[in-house]
Amino acid sequence: MQKIIGGVTAAKGFKAWGRNCGIKKSGKPDLALVCSEVPAIAAGVFTTNKVKAAPVLLSQQHLIQEYAQAILINSGNANACTGKEGFDHAEKTAQAVAKLFKILPEQVLLASTGVIGIPLPVNLILNSLPVLVEELSATGGHEAAKAIMTTDTFPKEWAVVREINGQEIRIGGMCKGSGMIQPNMATMLGIITTDAAIEEDILKDCLQHIVNQTFNRITVDGDTSTNDTVFLLANGAAGGPKIKTGPELEAFMEGLYEVSSHLAQMIVKDGEGATKFLTIRVKGARTEEEAEIAARAVANSNLVKTAFFGEDANWGRILAAVGYSGIDFSPEQTEIFLGDLPVYSGTGLDFDENKAKMILKAKEIEVIIDLKQGEEDVTVWTCDLSYEYVKINGSYRT
Amino acid sequence: MQKIIGGVTAAKGFKAWGRNCGIKKSGKPDLALVCSEVPAIAAGVFTTNKVKAAPVLLSQQHLIQEYAQAILINSGNANACTGKEGFDHAEKTAQAVAKLFKILPEQVLLASTGVIGIPLPVNLILNSLPVLVEELSATGGHEAAKAIMTTDTFPKEWAVVREINGQEIRIGGMCKGSGMIQPNMATMLGIITTDAAIEEDILKDCLQHIVNQTFNRITVDGDTSTNDTVFLLANGAAGGPKIKTGPELEAFMEGLYEVSSHLAQMIVKDGEGATKFLTIRVKGARTEEEAEIAARAVANSNLVKTAFFGEDANWGRILAAVGYSGIDFSPEQTEIFLGDLPVYSGTGLDFDENKAKMILKAKEIEVIIDLKQGEEDVTVWTCDLSYEYVKINGSYRT
Repeated sequence: MQKIIGGVTAAKGFKAWGRNCGIKKSGKPDLALVCSEVPAIAAGVFTTNKVKAAPVLLSQQHLIQEYAQAILINSGNANACTGKEGFDHAEKTAQAVAKLFKILPEQVLLASTGVIGIPLPVNLILNSLPVLVEELSATGGHEAAKAIMTTDTFPKEWAVVREINGQEIRIGGMCKGSGMIQPNMATMLGIITTDAAIEEDILKDCLQHIVNQTFNRITVDGDTSTNDTVFLLANGAAGGPKIKTGPELEAFMEGLYEVSSHLAQMIVKDGEGATKFLTIRVKGARTEEEAEIAARAVANSNLVKTAFFGEDANWGRILAAVGYSGIDFSPEQTEIFLGDLPVYSGTGLDFDENKAKMILKAKEIEVIIDLKQGEEDVTVWTCDLSYEYVKINGSYRT
Repeated sequence: MQKIIGGVTAAKGFKAWGRNCGIKKSGKPDLALVCSEVPAIAAGVFTTNKVKAAPVLLSQQHLIQEYAQAILINSGNANACTGKEGFDHAEKTAQAVAKLFKILPEQVLLASTGVIGIPLPVNLILNSLPVLVEELSATGGHEAAKAIMTTDTFPKEWAVVREINGQEIRIGGMCKGSGMIQPNMATMLGIITTDAAIEEDILKDCLQHIVNQTFNRITVDGDTSTNDTVFLLANGAAGGPKIKTGPELEAFMEGLYEVSSHLAQMIVKDGEGATKFLTIRVKGARTEEEAEIAARAVANSNLVKTAFFGEDANWGRILAAVGYSGIDFSPEQTEIFLGDLPVYSGTGLDFDENKAKMILKAKEIEVIIDLKQGEEDVTVWTCDLSYEYVKINGSYRT
């Protein structure tokens, strides 16, 4: 598997672009369009929040269809908590895109990210669409990636090429999010495209499976947005027979994991105010579910996160977080490592504080918690909690 | 019901004191003893964390007995994650107290709060005990309250007197905790005493019930300590028949609620770095459980807490937190108020930003979320999330 450039337009037969339509008063790009030259098999995974934004609700309806051909994403306004009017606005934009492409509105998918509760300035979007369609380019992935940013400090793209059955297929994507930490002006969005040919049901299963292991395993503060969305379009432009089972499917899943995990980790690395990238790995669990619950409790603990910000080898907070996670385990059997340094094994170890300091000074730190109860192993990625986080989130809206 | 002074020694027949035994190098008091002149009916509620400190495990064993007569509390060391040695240390201190009072070790209860994973300096405690017993005083509640503090900025006491069946009974207590926000040097401890006469089973039920509505309804960051403990001793010194049912029991519960809710709220007000006291009330819920889940999700959301720190009327974050709490509700039906100002009713309201600013400038803010689904109503108390929180917790151990 090889990394390539191109992001969401790395795969054959996809075009994209981004521009400012006026939602962001700064003039920064705020409207992105991604399209496939031919109808593509489409899959989506959405926020589990009971409060779902209008573009989420509409895209869920549209995905009942097998195919989609265009994805329109705006930043600066979430079109969430906007009631019936918000849903009408979403429908209008989908209809306008469909008309320009001469496709059905159901073949258009939508995503929005930005402020909650403010009516979507739908006319700004409608007015810009014809130009944006003209600008679409087979090398426009980067422009699209910039247009979906909100508080992100860098655009997030990744793409790979790999051979499946003697056929080169490409998988590429873009995402945005400073770590799901701002439902008000953030949200996690991911758009992935591939030129592989694949069955609809299999594509949907693949996406759900990979999202669970990547985008769903990052956390900045445990807050889940109203707009979180990951789309995957597969247009088959690479040629070759459809991927169904066996080593071909495995190879495709590996490629999708590669793209998704890099995109997901970029979100955490861009977490607002983050100074450290933390890998929380729980191994030796009886079930994957228990491993994930424990890892997530540690990753979401403000006490653990502030300790890493302070470069403090505070294993007591890590053990306490596993303790209140709700899983059944034996603290006496458990071992905790910071990097490769054992710090707890049933009781606190007399570890070398200087070695601990070296490990904690690094930008990327791995924490391993071995429950010694079974074979399951889950990794969750997160970041530390800094002054900056409080500053950004305390003073955003006003 | 009338507020009185005296804290944990407000009730008849109780003595207490506190002193420095050398655990805290600063010389600040770190050892407190509370005792009843006669054996008292005893009840306790403990942390639900799977990782339980030695004093918690030992006190749970001792509470199998109906009576207790002394409670020894040390601050500065949690005696948690200290293995078999830590349990032996706890047993030794209970035995030493028992010997001085000529009672059974099972009649001694223990609580510890402070650093996790460091062996308890048990000899310092044993050496100080004889003097501490000599110092015990019927007006020593305040000295005891000072000796259980860790990062608390003020001692926390409350006491009330009320008439039950023509008999005056007193309920008083003390607690410590800067909001469960530091399992490493914090923990929530509460010690309540009463001179009411009451059956053991009823006392235990009362305590569990009231703790669920008070100490269990505060949250600073969702972290649950390894040492959290609330004890209640009832020695019957007020005289009169035993409280069993009816209006007598109701009156007693009201008194216990009064003391417990004030103590619990003091913990939140002393929450580290807290600048605002937030009352999160979810009403119109179908069940008490759902109301509590929703209120707790809002109270624990870093996004909500930083918004209040920034005095930002960010109702979108409140609604989003209810949305991911896991309860089933209708965002379209829901209403949100900041104080008495409606800000959301199925869709964002065009509220007066100046009025919102006035409400948000106050030290104490009430948020009301009306789900309009039923009759249940739950209040959770919390505080905002400030720079100071990150600072204190990021730089504690090193």
